[in-house]
Amino acid sequence: MSSRSLPVPLRILGTGTFTPGRRVESTEFDARWRKPAGWTQRHTGIDHRHHATADETTSAMAAHAAREALDRAGLQARDLDLVVSACSVMEQAIPCSAVFVHRRLGLEGTGIAAFDVNATCLSFLAALDMVACMLAAGRLERALIVSSEIASAGLNWDDPDSAPLFGDGAAAVVVSRAPADSRSQLLAAHMETYSEGAELCRVRAGGTRLRVADDMDAYRDAARFEMAGKATYRLAAQLLPGYLARLFGRAGVTLDDLDAFVPHQASDKALAHLQHALRLPEDRLVRILSTHGNQMAASIPTALHRAIDAGRIVRDDLVALVGSGAGLSFGGAVLRY
Amino acid sequence: MSSRSLPVPLRILGTGTFTPGRRVESTEFDARWRKPAGWTQRHTGIDHRHHATADETTSAMAAHAAREALDRAGLQARDLDLVVSACSVMEQAIPCSAVFVHRRLGLEGTGIAAFDVNATCLSFLAALDMVACMLAAGRLERALIVSSEIASAGLNWDDPDSAPLFGDGAAAVVVSRAPADSRSQLLAAHMETYSEGAELCRVRAGGTRLRVADDMDAYRDAARFEMAGKATYRLAAQLLPGYLARLFGRAGVTLDDLDAFVPHQASDKALAHLQHALRLPEDRLVRILSTHGNQMAASIPTALHRAIDAGRIVRDDLVALVGSGAGLSFGGAVLRY
Repeated sequence: MSSRSLPVPLRILGTGTFTPGRRVESTEFDARWRKPAGWTQRHTGIDHRHHATADETTSAMAAHAAREALDRAGLQARDLDLVVSACSVMEQAIPCSAVFVHRRLGLEGTGIAAFDVNATCLSFLAALDMVACMLAAGRLERALIVSSEIASAGLNWDDPDSAPLFGDGAAAVVVSRAPADSRSQLLAAHMETYSEGAELCRVRAGGTRLRVADDMDAYRDAARFEMAGKATYRLAAQLLPGYLARLFGRAGVTLDDLDAFVPHQASDKALAHLQHALRLPEDRLVRILSTHGNQMAASIPTALHRAIDAGRIVRDDLVALVGSGAGLSFGGAVLRY
Repeated sequence: MSSRSLPVPLRILGTGTFTPGRRVESTEFDARWRKPAGWTQRHTGIDHRHHATADETTSAMAAHAAREALDRAGLQARDLDLVVSACSVMEQAIPCSAVFVHRRLGLEGTGIAAFDVNATCLSFLAALDMVACMLAAGRLERALIVSSEIASAGLNWDDPDSAPLFGDGAAAVVVSRAPADSRSQLLAAHMETYSEGAELCRVRAGGTRLRVADDMDAYRDAARFEMAGKATYRLAAQLLPGYLARLFGRAGVTLDDLDAFVPHQASDKALAHLQHALRLPEDRLVRILSTHGNQMAASIPTALHRAIDAGRIVRDDLVALVGSGAGLSFGGAVLRY
């Protein structure tokens, strides 16, 4: 499966985001840990991030972002054929999160399909490729993909490596099959999983592995995000060049062909590594980390939205969306916008 | 989107299941609730179901079922291009469950992609259609879809409607693009979601909605499955005929064309309703409820495996896989095996 991919006629019709209410400055972490002002910002490259308030649930944020994406696409929610929730963490165990987004968009009674795709931080990319293939097969005409994350629900506030790193937020994309007179297409999408990294980034609670009734204190500890930052960085850095070569090979493009490179906003160090490894000029790399933090699956579609909004991505541009996530997995898509 | 679907060249190469160790007789529930022996069996139509032991984790059961499916397909795990976990409830919140299945299949270092699809009890059907469309688009050649459920982790042992209803287990299917000389194909797949039923079947814990650190007792209660059985049945019964007409219309088949009808094993009442509504002869309806219980997403692939194993489904047979699940959603696929 290393040969050139067949392009799929995919067009992004509209994008939207939602930023939750509570802005958290990096100086809040400095004060918490009795560090000099500026320590957290220097340590993480993040100035501020937002955390969701009690009313800003996963599906509420998703619906806000979805409405903006639908507005920009000039569509109503009822024009959709499918609602995909593409998040790392669900709103609750049953039913899937897309059902709650569906209801918040007023889609009761319509029968429009709704389900979730989960590839942790790469959920948006996995969902985008799935939807593109379903469009190509004639299964649907228009779909909503929404990634909404409340990382703050699982932060370990005692861990300076991970607590300041994450931000909450949502982003949505409305896509359709590209019309015949459009150059929009998905040239390739490709994902690779290296499960030797399965324990590097994890939240052990939330599923069948641990039961709250067995040991409440152990469960509470396991509900916090655990990250082996250095080991994750090392494994990702080692595997990234080969992964990117395979992605670009499938797309039939080289780095110089790309107008914009939209990476997962994993961390300052990961972004610096990517920029250095690819020798990417600053103006082609979309960076939102310093004002958003790592928003897990919402990072890539949020960065895409910001770049489109700022005019950095315009129609017919060749764009790469790339990231790594818990698993350890790599995901990417190369598309003509 | 009500017109006839384009068939997709999908072939099921092998199926497998795993039944966990602890067999739970319905008389255990009778004793617990001080009912006369036979009460639970009469109430649920279920003679026994199996519950997972501590070692039988979601991914361990999935890997057992996957190995059987691979064996029957004559393939090694390394021949796969994608591992999809299609379960209602994850093993843990991060990373996705497919990563753990990937590791248990010895796929470390291979880069074979792994991610989850979640449409609660319809997860297998959502994943099957997604994989079929990815096969058709040339994204992959062979994929594993595995549904593994530990419903017993979230049972409310005080609820006679739901506690005896569910059973644990796993089922796996290996699929490929159908070769040109094969009649195997997916004629249609179709899903509909009615989010007015979002609260009918639920587990409120396990995601961002509730946090264990906020109120441990409330969280423990919310980790148990809640079901409004009668309301679910009413809504499902009302919507089912229209749904089936649309599914069969897309597939271009009538009920009489079908060699086997493999339903989700939702409940005895739901199966009886389906059989009556469709006037299905007993020999065309696959029923495993009495010896398995409702295994959530694992029900449909387990029933499919049992029917193939028993020779009730043979090559070139026309088969419908249909179910309803939390959401409330309907899902179905019509395929030539």
